[in-house]
Amino acid sequence: MADNLAAAEAQLLAERSAAVLFERDRASQMLGMGITAIRPGFAQVSMTVREDMLNGHGVCHGGLLFALADSAFAFACNSHNEATVAAAAAIDFLRPAQPGEQLTAEAREVWRTSRNGIYEIVIFNPHGEKVALFRGRSYRIEGPVLPP
Amino acid sequence: MADNLAAAEAQLLAERSAAVLFERDRASQMLGMGITAIRPGFAQVSMTVREDMLNGHGVCHGGLLFALADSAFAFACNSHNEATVAAAAAIDFLRPAQPGEQLTAEAREVWRTSRNGIYEIVIFNPHGEKVALFRGRSYRIEGPVLPP
Amino acid sequence: MADNLAAAEAQLLAERSAAVLFERDRASQMLGMGITAIRPGFAQVSMTVREDMLNGHGVCHGGLLFALADSAFAFACNSHNEATVAAAAAIDFLRPAQPGEQLTAEAREVWRTSRNGIYEIVIFNPHGEKVALFRGRSYRIEGPVLPP
Amino acid sequence: MADNLAAAEAQLLAERSAAVLFERDRASQMLGMGITAIRPGFAQVSMTVREDMLNGHGVCHGGLLFALADSAFAFACNSHNEATVAAAAAIDFLRPAQPGEQLTAEAREVWRTSRNGIYEIVIFNPHGEKVALFRGRSYRIEGPVLPP
Repeated sequence: MADNLAAAEAQLLAERSAAVLFERDRASQMLGMGITAIRPGFAQVSMTVREDMLNGHGVCHGGLLFALADSAFAFACNSHNEATVAAAAAIDFLRPAQPGEQLTAEAREVWRTSRNGIYEIVIFNPHGEKVALFRGRSYRIEGPVLPP
Repeated sequence: MADNLAAAEAQLLAERSAAVLFERDRASQMLGMGITAIRPGFAQVSMTVREDMLNGHGVCHGGLLFALADSAFAFACNSHNEATVAAAAAIDFLRPAQPGEQLTAEAREVWRTSRNGIYEIVIFNPHGEKVALFRGRSYRIEGPVLPP
Repeated sequence: MADNLAAAEAQLLAERSAAVLFERDRASQMLGMGITAIRPGFAQVSMTVREDMLNGHGVCHGGLLFALADSAFAFACNSHNEATVAAAAAIDFLRPAQPGEQLTAEAREVWRTSRNGIYEIVIFNPHGEKVALFRGRSYRIEGPVLPP
Repeated sequence: MADNLAAAEAQLLAERSAAVLFERDRASQMLGMGITAIRPGFAQVSMTVREDMLNGHGVCHGGLLFALADSAFAFACNSHNEATVAAAAAIDFLRPAQPGEQLTAEAREVWRTSRNGIYEIVIFNPHGEKVALFRGRSYRIEGPVLPP
């Protein structure tokens, strides 16, 4: 019972933190992202590859794939209502993303201390194929995500 | 004399490859980037942090910093008129970039074989401070950058 | 039935490739490593932290943690009897490993093409805690692992 | 004059910190490493590739290349007499190192705050060719390197 309450509270914090953060996140909005799932330490974010997201080779610019993964990372690592930012990240590009494809990034917390965390993000295309693998290192800054 | 001709030819290829690639690169254009210098194995690209590039913490979204570095990387690694794409990259975020700041990314080739290359990119803010460090691994695909 | 044969053949190749590679691998032997499980695309390797593996802070030297993960990576990416080497790797150190601890590295293939692969390796301590996360990029060189 | 004194003091701290750390560093000793230069934020470390350092492909095990770079990183990031450890690192392997070759790793500080630092390390072979590129992220723990 206490556990259920704690879990419900954690879920509520995750949802409210993500909502507040997304509302302020002009870049994710500009890129047409949407949060499709959120839980403590987990976020799923989608983005459709637009014509103005293509690079010189006619596929999605690697920076915008990174941005999608980075946003999922941000929503996951801020899901505990502790203001958290990215320190570093690495990405492997596995296959190109084509114009018109709806991509989905899933971010999972794999390790967290009071100051640092590590998150793994996978971007999938509509066929369920992996487009990119991303690993991010976060650190806490001062204060909560939610206004008091 | 032969060396001078070869160098002038290499410089011309770098300039033409970058121009052709940038013209097709809708994403870099959408983000307001401009190529400010290009040489064989080197590119300098600028981008001003717009309001619609801010994340939920009010500073430039990490994905768009990455995109700036990634574009500089692309122009540098395609400067030999051999079509080349990113295999992987890692970024360290050193300090936030503020709205209105004009950022400059400088990409340098540090190693290249017939198939693979490694490039280091530094993003500077207008005060000359390092904003991010990026290291990218490229690999060649078929064909030249320039149309025959 | 055909599937069972193919799987048995793949498993046999994995075991023989690992055995041949390990026998030639003086470094892994010098560090006291042992292969504790091998399957196509998977390897588990153990190593006990000796006194001569400690760094100046009295815990296992990060390079030797990396070496353990790197060996597991090598056995996993050579498990298809195609000679394969590491192109790049990244490691996150999560907690120190103490003298006397037996560490276990598990390597899993997460992506593979005819030329390149990506593997994730986790190092655990005897308490089942994660000590380090490692991601490696492999590429094929000429020839098989096994002698003809 | 004050500047000269401060620089001499910083140099002395770097030398003494490296000496104390190296004396305790059983792993670097076991691998035959030697510090060949040390300055505030800089270290140069050498290691000769022994027969017992070879991997299954007959060249220096990637983990021992990493260990060499990691030791240079450690001496550089502890050169300010502030106890510092590695949080994460990434390495690109550019060419194999052959048995008998004396390798040299040079570590340079590229960024440092009160808590974190970033260091770039290059490993050279005796022909001056780059063998590997390494980038490490450090963080300070409690206390100085030197005993009080």
